[in-house]
Amino acid sequence: MRPFVFVNIAMSADGKISTGERRQVKISGSEDYLRVDRIKAESDAIMVGIGTVLADNPSLTVKSPEHRAGRRAAGKDENPIRVVVDGRGRTPLDADILHKGSGKRIIAVSGKAPSDAVDALRQHAAVIVAGDETVDLEALLEDLYRQGVRRLMVEGGGRLIWTLFEQGLIDEFQAFIGNIIIGGMDAPTPVDGAGFIQEVDFTRLHLIDAERIDDGLLVRWSVPRE
Amino acid sequence: MRPFVFVNIAMSADGKISTGERRQVKISGSEDYLRVDRIKAESDAIMVGIGTVLADNPSLTVKSPEHRAGRRAAGKDENPIRVVVDGRGRTPLDADILHKGSGKRIIAVSGKAPSDAVDALRQHAAVIVAGDETVDLEALLEDLYRQGVRRLMVEGGGRLIWTLFEQGLIDEFQAFIGNIIIGGMDAPTPVDGAGFIQEVDFTRLHLIDAERIDDGLLVRWSVPRE
Repeated sequence: MRPFVFVNIAMSADGKISTGERRQVKISGSEDYLRVDRIKAESDAIMVGIGTVLADNPSLTVKSPEHRAGRRAAGKDENPIRVVVDGRGRTPLDADILHKGSGKRIIAVSGKAPSDAVDALRQHAAVIVAGDETVDLEALLEDLYRQGVRRLMVEGGGRLIWTLFEQGLIDEFQAFIGNIIIGGMDAPTPVDGAGFIQEVDFTRLHLIDAERIDDGLLVRWSVPRE
Repeated sequence: MRPFVFVNIAMSADGKISTGERRQVKISGSEDYLRVDRIKAESDAIMVGIGTVLADNPSLTVKSPEHRAGRRAAGKDENPIRVVVDGRGRTPLDADILHKGSGKRIIAVSGKAPSDAVDALRQHAAVIVAGDETVDLEALLEDLYRQGVRRLMVEGGGRLIWTLFEQGLIDEFQAFIGNIIIGGMDAPTPVDGAGFIQEVDFTRLHLIDAERIDDGLLVRWSVPRE
């Protein structure tokens, strides 16, 4: 058993999540900002890859005082469990995700993570070792399920999302498409990594709905279980 | 003066136009196929970059007999003028675009194109020399306008579309978003090239509409003139 896993990303009209220099850019507007904060508050856990932690240093906290109060009233921590997929234990000890806001943090490492890095991270977070060379995502998701996580939001980056799609571990893909063109053959995209080479391997989606938000479009796709 | 320039592309839900190996893949369905054939028939010219000719060898002809007959009845050629942006004159002499279907072809080259290649291409197409090192797209569009082209459809690839966006020469961007995930950091995207680095340079779009077609979504964006 694993949680319901949904991806939430913002991309440009030409499918980029930032510039070729991986600079964080504003793609969505205030309405989408509120939406993302709400679906974050509705999740039991929120997951990112180490690349996103190193590039953007996000705190992944719930921003709205109302949503935080709502979580407390329901007997939950103010923030969902924050999970970093970090095979080699490279999360900086001063990363915002380890210090900002209350609630649990989990760093998921592989057997390749140096033990001194793991020991240091344990001062700030629970550490799960899953997998020998890279993080075993299926085992990690099963572990999170055992800890009560039923709804997991994935915020990026493109490499983590790729690995989850490759392994068939995603249930829903939500993309806010902003009204900009970024361009660039080296600009990161929502699903990077190796990519599917054979057409038969492509993940097939079902269009749930599309809705105007701010000056862009929120498109929601489900991944039918085979 | 230049024609109204619109881009029409099909991409996956994660913003890819083919796989990392640049294999042509089926992204849209039969309804979108008919739509693209119709908007092609409604255009005065259709343009692609040399990369697309070399990778996909498209003929760019109008497929529907009704649309071809409609064009004839209106006193036009069966197919819109087919234009290849081909700075160094590399269009293969046996390319389908030079042989399939009736109507004019234009190969736009730069001063860098070897004269023997240009002479050979002149057997099959009109050759326009515009620009010294690369094709001067603005001059090419002005030339096409003088030849009566009022509505120009751009089918790709990502590098040509990038250069047109960079130079502010696009009026509308139509993207059919198919219900698949392709993934891949090396997979081509609708707008490749160098990409914008500064947020202030991003092309700003206006969402015209979004419509379900086949199992995907057709999204139309206009580029407001500044």
